[in-house]
Amino acid sequence: MPSPFEEDTRVVPAGEPGRWEAELTDRWDISVPNGGYVLAVALAAVAAEVDQPHPLAVSAHFLATCEHGPATVDVTVLKQGRSLSTAAATLWQRDRARVAVLATYADLRASNGPTLVSVAPPSLPPPEECGFIGERPAGGLDERPAIADRVEFRPSPASARALASRGAPTRLEGWLRMAEDGPTGPEHLPLLVDASPPAVFAAFETGWVPTIELTVHVRGVPAPGWLRARIETRVLVDGELEEDCMLWDADGRVVAMSRQLARVLPPATR
Amino acid sequence: MPSPFEEDTRVVPAGEPGRWEAELTDRWDISVPNGGYVLAVALAAVAAEVDQPHPLAVSAHFLATCEHGPATVDVTVLKQGRSLSTAAATLWQRDRARVAVLATYADLRASNGPTLVSVAPPSLPPPEECGFIGERPAGGLDERPAIADRVEFRPSPASARALASRGAPTRLEGWLRMAEDGPTGPEHLPLLVDASPPAVFAAFETGWVPTIELTVHVRGVPAPGWLRARIETRVLVDGELEEDCMLWDADGRVVAMSRQLARVLPPATR
Repeated sequence: MPSPFEEDTRVVPAGEPGRWEAELTDRWDISVPNGGYVLAVALAAVAAEVDQPHPLAVSAHFLATCEHGPATVDVTVLKQGRSLSTAAATLWQRDRARVAVLATYADLRASNGPTLVSVAPPSLPPPEECGFIGERPAGGLDERPAIADRVEFRPSPASARALASRGAPTRLEGWLRMAEDGPTGPEHLPLLVDASPPAVFAAFETGWVPTIELTVHVRGVPAPGWLRARIETRVLVDGELEEDCMLWDADGRVVAMSRQLARVLPPATR
Repeated sequence: MPSPFEEDTRVVPAGEPGRWEAELTDRWDISVPNGGYVLAVALAAVAAEVDQPHPLAVSAHFLATCEHGPATVDVTVLKQGRSLSTAAATLWQRDRARVAVLATYADLRASNGPTLVSVAPPSLPPPEECGFIGERPAGGLDERPAIADRVEFRPSPASARALASRGAPTRLEGWLRMAEDGPTGPEHLPLLVDASPPAVFAAFETGWVPTIELTVHVRGVPAPGWLRARIETRVLVDGELEEDCMLWDADGRVVAMSRQLARVLPPATR
């Protein structure tokens, strides 16, 4: 049986070269379809066109909010190489470009060369001792977004306290996984890096934090089990911020690094 | 009189909508044309098509090494908005896509909202007390790359020592500016974030470090004067690394944050 992720990111050929049809469901909402989910849909179309199995570097520019319902993804393969392929993809709804993507695919198991890592995964109590205090903060959106049933984020006790009382540094740490059964693969990581509350929620009350641009580097195939996540903002200026997310697998290896540029809206707006 | 940057990033209409002609010169070489320079050429074509004056978020995927000589840039404007516009651009040489770009443009002076910054610029001795010890390390490329005459990077004494003797953490700090006269604007920043030696050069001897993907967030219009730069790699795994660059202007404000995914080649290769 297909998982919700497989079902909801399925693309079918639209009868023209490079054109794919999809259906955005309401199961990945943060009141509107989550940006990482929409990106995963666009990537499903890219994956169908390139020779390599894994997203390596993915850049998405978010042009307009998406809606539930049909979407068209146009894919142009710009390079079909032996080790790397790159495609441009645009996701359209009702004749309006909603998300533009550049994606470079590779076989993540094929890279080789030196290793030197100077950042450690967060120290976390076990997942059963982590989780939100009260409701997951929603930033002016639905109180319990649908995506909370599909992606499980369990903040560390310190991050849970920060999210409940604010006034803390703009950094969150916690456990993260797909709520569905089955292994978490590289294809899930562009969704997962965008599926936690924004780090700015630790500092003060805001409204929605819409993403302008999101780039994900997938650095490895995750080992089975929970991922550790660190989400951090260092530069919020005039309402615009970067948010970095790092994900480590159960073996302590970095599997994804992402950065997004986003806008912080005031608490009342959505 | 136009500056070298203006001259060498000039684009002219190619007679078809969205198509521009350019000429890649040999003045920005790191043996081949520097990726940031080629990106600046593609962005010159984007800037000619969108309503906003400044690059805000720019993502570039590097598909093939560029050559000196003619290039064609195809621009598709995906959104022409009141505050943000987004275009896709592909730079071609001899019928081969070399660089693919997504660029979101804005007026950087128009943003407003809260400010909260938790990262400080590097403390540096004055520029006249900074600089390389001996030759600028070249990573298997030309000993003194042409770009060293166009972009001035003066590493701090600690970073200069690291570059001379290696074995240090993968972090470089220093002063950075265009060598040419005239103000440094937002249009120069996508070049400047890619114009210093890679941070991995502080740790060990490598060959060339070709960029796979580079995303730049331009966070402000720089005040006149030297920029402070911090360039850092935290995760080198199996020969692939991320490199983050932050640039601060003379007023201490962050003006650019970039991240690239790159490959480390062994010392003998180029």
